[in-house]
Amino acid sequence: MILSRVLIIEAGLLCLPMMCAGWYHEPTGPFLHTIVTVMLVALALAYPSRRASIRSMRAVEGFVGVALSWIVMSLFGALPYVFSGAIPSYVDALFEMVSGITTTGSSILTDLESLPRSIIFWRSFSHFIGGMGVLVFMMAILPMDEQHSMHLMRAEVPGPVKGKLVPRMRDTAKILYLLYIAMTVAEVVFLLLGGMPLFDSLCTAFGTTATGGFGVHNSSMAYYDSAYLEMVVAVFMVLSGVNYNLYYLVILRRSIKGFKSEELGWYLAIIAAATVTIASNIVKSVGSMAHALRLAFFQVASIMTSTGFASTDFDLWPAYSKVLLVLLMIIGACAGSTGGGTKVSRLIISVKAAVAELRQQASPRSVLRVTLDGERLGAETIRTTLVFLIMYASLVVLSCLLLSIQGVDLITTFTSTIACISNIGPGLALVGPTGNFAFWSDPAKLLLSFLMIAGRLEIYAIMMLFSRHVWRSLLR
Amino acid sequence: MILSRVLIIEAGLLCLPMMCAGWYHEPTGPFLHTIVTVMLVALALAYPSRRASIRSMRAVEGFVGVALSWIVMSLFGALPYVFSGAIPSYVDALFEMVSGITTTGSSILTDLESLPRSIIFWRSFSHFIGGMGVLVFMMAILPMDEQHSMHLMRAEVPGPVKGKLVPRMRDTAKILYLLYIAMTVAEVVFLLLGGMPLFDSLCTAFGTTATGGFGVHNSSMAYYDSAYLEMVVAVFMVLSGVNYNLYYLVILRRSIKGFKSEELGWYLAIIAAATVTIASNIVKSVGSMAHALRLAFFQVASIMTSTGFASTDFDLWPAYSKVLLVLLMIIGACAGSTGGGTKVSRLIISVKAAVAELRQQASPRSVLRVTLDGERLGAETIRTTLVFLIMYASLVVLSCLLLSIQGVDLITTFTSTIACISNIGPGLALVGPTGNFAFWSDPAKLLLSFLMIAGRLEIYAIMMLFSRHVWRSLLR
Repeated sequence: MILSRVLIIEAGLLCLPMMCAGWYHEPTGPFLHTIVTVMLVALALAYPSRRASIRSMRAVEGFVGVALSWIVMSLFGALPYVFSGAIPSYVDALFEMVSGITTTGSSILTDLESLPRSIIFWRSFSHFIGGMGVLVFMMAILPMDEQHSMHLMRAEVPGPVKGKLVPRMRDTAKILYLLYIAMTVAEVVFLLLGGMPLFDSLCTAFGTTATGGFGVHNSSMAYYDSAYLEMVVAVFMVLSGVNYNLYYLVILRRSIKGFKSEELGWYLAIIAAATVTIASNIVKSVGSMAHALRLAFFQVASIMTSTGFASTDFDLWPAYSKVLLVLLMIIGACAGSTGGGTKVSRLIISVKAAVAELRQQASPRSVLRVTLDGERLGAETIRTTLVFLIMYASLVVLSCLLLSIQGVDLITTFTSTIACISNIGPGLALVGPTGNFAFWSDPAKLLLSFLMIAGRLEIYAIMMLFSRHVWRSLLR
Repeated sequence: MILSRVLIIEAGLLCLPMMCAGWYHEPTGPFLHTIVTVMLVALALAYPSRRASIRSMRAVEGFVGVALSWIVMSLFGALPYVFSGAIPSYVDALFEMVSGITTTGSSILTDLESLPRSIIFWRSFSHFIGGMGVLVFMMAILPMDEQHSMHLMRAEVPGPVKGKLVPRMRDTAKILYLLYIAMTVAEVVFLLLGGMPLFDSLCTAFGTTATGGFGVHNSSMAYYDSAYLEMVVAVFMVLSGVNYNLYYLVILRRSIKGFKSEELGWYLAIIAAATVTIASNIVKSVGSMAHALRLAFFQVASIMTSTGFASTDFDLWPAYSKVLLVLLMIIGACAGSTGGGTKVSRLIISVKAAVAELRQQASPRSVLRVTLDGERLGAETIRTTLVFLIMYASLVVLSCLLLSIQGVDLITTFTSTIACISNIGPGLALVGPTGNFAFWSDPAKLLLSFLMIAGRLEIYAIMMLFSRHVWRSLLR
């Protein structure tokens, strides 16, 4: 069964923070106990269905398998937090783990600096695991034939990816994974060069390339107060928000032309425009334009890519900057990146669809035509994109309504929802860069955890778990 | 030219508030001067294009004609406010007039009770004019053949109306208009029976059946503090939010079966559910459940139908009630009613489309099937509905961004936008039931006026004014 494989991998991954604990002379027990638990459950899950091969996997099983994998990995990944006493409440620990593995970065912790280093490492490392997707990872190392991998990939790869990569899926996954590791290593090197300690560099790089955002210090990136380090992280955040297919194409064709993409253009243009307008909006309060640009660029890159690192308390910025940041939270990064949000390509497609619709309303006999990168998009792609946006909006609205039962102010309620479903990390007001999610009630934390997974799996996969139709089809 | 006809009608309509001014011995000058101005402009507009017949009207001309008519009527309708000195600033006066004629009910006035009665009358009467749409009105009395009327009707009738009414458009328009007047008169009678003065009854009824919401007193409906009057207004608000086609069908078939409609069912169910949950949310602070239900029902009916009367300061309610009210603002009333918002039928269609999409993702070979009232919806209807919602959301987001430049708090910024584009009236915080829109800067007021017209004309018609494609097609 797929879940047992996922758990065995998780047990393997847990060895790293255990080694980290050993290195820093911290108790290794929390990790060891979790590994034993996970292995026992994995064996129990593997036994009954050993014969039910995954070779006969259908699309729906791929979706459900991915959704369940994320849930199961989170359920067990939360154990080290509880066992170590770092987060005594299991619901809190689960929230933190879901936030890590979905590369969100929302935290319920109030004082990071008092925690064991191995726990901080596991927290940041869970970003790294989640980053490229447990299943892309799985595909690269597990025996599976191409067709099944495609189904899993479809649920996993963020955004409306047009054009399959290449037929040989497992090779592709390996290459993407290598790219991802290379990017992480490169960032570690640049951070070390700036004088950041190795431990901090590793954790920060995990948080950056996965667009996660868990920091090592209470004040996030503001702790270092170094323009060089901020720019390194900002640039790597921007790089991590780019569609990995583009890197792949550039390598494959050995040509920079692989970067030619409408989505990339808009993505960079939005970052540039947002940086400049926010900088001019905050320049009065921060003094110099250079400093304003530094703060604005870091924050825009951090929010747009859904990372969530903070170099200042942007909750204190004027209304315009805050509204713009919330807007960037909703837009998010490029499809096929590790970033969250609704994705730049969906924004492009919906804007173009709206323009085309206006034309057709004006002259009913004209033909509706929407293109992306010069290729005409089918009616199905447009519909799927629009429905995705509607589902995203509906989930946000319904969650706000449920969260509001607790009676917290509306800004906190709304931005908590957006920060979780878009996998950002911080929001505004109580969940701003200096705040955290600890005050939410347990049901609210579970709802927000659900939103993080829903957002990470592009909603469809997780919503299928609620469909009678899907379960009926699975049990048939 | 169509605009000159619209202006002549407006001049005629202005005679009523002028008579009102005469009756109360108030200066008639402001109205007389406006009438003269309007007539002069109407003549000037009529002259050059007298030969360019409207018989050859295409869809795009219908849309543009409607959009321009609303703008022109607002531009001139604002004059009495300025001439009388009631609203010295023209931008303010324009905002108030647009708010009236789009049946929004957002106001920049701080003290209604100090104003001449004829001005109050004109304010409420502008709701009545806007209510069923200037163009439905026009169709009923102006010579035009059926096909052209259809095009105008398409831009005017709110929501995705499925099934054209009857081929004989002008007769239909006359019947709808009679229905509308009958409803208004009925409400006046019921209000008089409750002891409300005739002037107040008339103005309140104008505000109700048009789902406008301008009140006669500073404290809106709370002034009367009468459960009977509140219930009369609430029931008429609910009735005014129903699709007029249904009334028409019931009359046509002389059978109550005409009321069988999925949209009506959801509309009433949402009102009932929202009333009960809000009542239980506020019961602690208001004392008795009966009082809580009275307040909740009035406010839910007022917000859901986009009227905007207030019987209490709901800005002081707990978070859950406020979030739910904002949600109702977005949903709005039924298609084909005088109400605003995105319309219940669009909500139904998008929910059904999302469910169908999930099914198709799970089993790719299944056929996408979405039905409403037992009839299958075409792909075009679904796409148009989804694109509408995306355009609504985009307009809200962009407007929030522009408004936030002024630096007002985010709740005020967001709910001002929603209150205007959904033609509600009040929002929360600074624009709550005890507040008003006066503090917004002139550019912000113009933007909000634009949103009111955009919302009233279901976005498409007004957006066409910004399309190069449309203008090229018009000038060809």
